[in-house]
Amino acid sequence: MEASDLTGHISRRFNKDLEDLRNRVLAMGGLVESQLTLAISAIVGGDSELGLQVARDDYKVNELEVSIDEECSRILATRAPAASDLRLIVAIIKTITDLERIGDEAEKIGYLASKLAGMDRPSNSYRELKTLGTHVSHMLRDAMNAFARLDVAEAFDVFHEDELVDEEYDALTRQCITFMMEDPRSIKRVLNVTWAARSLERIGDHAKNICEYVVYMVQGRDVRHTDISKMSDIES
Amino acid sequence: MEASDLTGHISRRFNKDLEDLRNRVLAMGGLVESQLTLAISAIVGGDSELGLQVARDDYKVNELEVSIDEECSRILATRAPAASDLRLIVAIIKTITDLERIGDEAEKIGYLASKLAGMDRPSNSYRELKTLGTHVSHMLRDAMNAFARLDVAEAFDVFHEDELVDEEYDALTRQCITFMMEDPRSIKRVLNVTWAARSLERIGDHAKNICEYVVYMVQGRDVRHTDISKMSDIES
Repeated sequence: MEASDLTGHISRRFNKDLEDLRNRVLAMGGLVESQLTLAISAIVGGDSELGLQVARDDYKVNELEVSIDEECSRILATRAPAASDLRLIVAIIKTITDLERIGDEAEKIGYLASKLAGMDRPSNSYRELKTLGTHVSHMLRDAMNAFARLDVAEAFDVFHEDELVDEEYDALTRQCITFMMEDPRSIKRVLNVTWAARSLERIGDHAKNICEYVVYMVQGRDVRHTDISKMSDIES
Repeated sequence: MEASDLTGHISRRFNKDLEDLRNRVLAMGGLVESQLTLAISAIVGGDSELGLQVARDDYKVNELEVSIDEECSRILATRAPAASDLRLIVAIIKTITDLERIGDEAEKIGYLASKLAGMDRPSNSYRELKTLGTHVSHMLRDAMNAFARLDVAEAFDVFHEDELVDEEYDALTRQCITFMMEDPRSIKRVLNVTWAARSLERIGDHAKNICEYVVYMVQGRDVRHTDISKMSDIES
């Protein structure tokens, strides 16, 4: 084998390793999205067993995180990647941490769904939680699409969505306070609703974090802790 | 210069880089600890201005995170570290993410302190929050000590502390529910207390995460998502 063939061979194998790694992150994202969707269904449908199932299945998310993490360390140690390849690996190490925490929040929502299923149900079947949950699910899906396509424009869309999610969350919390004041017997139940809303809001934050890593991967620019509203100008 | 001198020189410089990096992480830990302590003081002392100061100072934590992160990428790209050096860098990338999130929680507690300062004060000056806050501060300090000394035994102590913090947090939440039921006019205020307690509980989780990275650094073993209570047997 000629030296150039060998180099080409190594480089092809390296590219395949990176491609496999990216696909595993996307699979992890898909699993986490599905956990979130099921957790929201469990709340809306008052389905205690489904909520508990989501909570029980969190170990699958955790297993994926550990195995992807190990693969990242293996590639760092054996390939010593540079420039954009290195940024990809660092971004993946961070992305899977956020995905794992989204899984933890879905687990919490699963437990809360199970609790809420055993309590009085409001006539609107937790419509506000469903609306917020759907919004956050879309954010997460868009974040993973931005990751898959290395799409910076889509990443910036998610930053703006997160502001809307925060507003929705604030409105929902204020509404919960009003309910509790009007009917103190509802406090325990409504407090569970605020915990679920808070978990959803946090999932939005994690989706935003993932989009920051996408921008870092593509542009090598760290957009964390900067005023995102000013960033879209720079980007365009 | 002989080749061996050159190798020695490069290796000394590399060790110095790693030492500097560790020291910067410890400095970031120190800053975050101080932010947490001030945030708790602001709640207990009803000091709105101090609470807002903590919130305003969060940018210092963020700046440290970004600069340490860049240094990690630089070292990964230029030194291609292996084995324990690589584990150190990966652990640092993760640790500073948790430290940054602890900073975010301290910022939230600062804002909550400022809100609470303008409301009725309970006769006990939020003693339960102070107790929980002190406990969590100690956990964080112990986690950073475990990091500084690569002390696996101390890391395991923190895992056990986190279980106690979770119990304290649950008790505090139950107490808050009772208060709200007994006096619905207190709901808004007490809800702020539960948010602060939740932030403290999350800081405990982040401290625990840091200890998991310490174990990973020292033993190359990933202890996330494993039953910690069984781990101390393996360790001893």
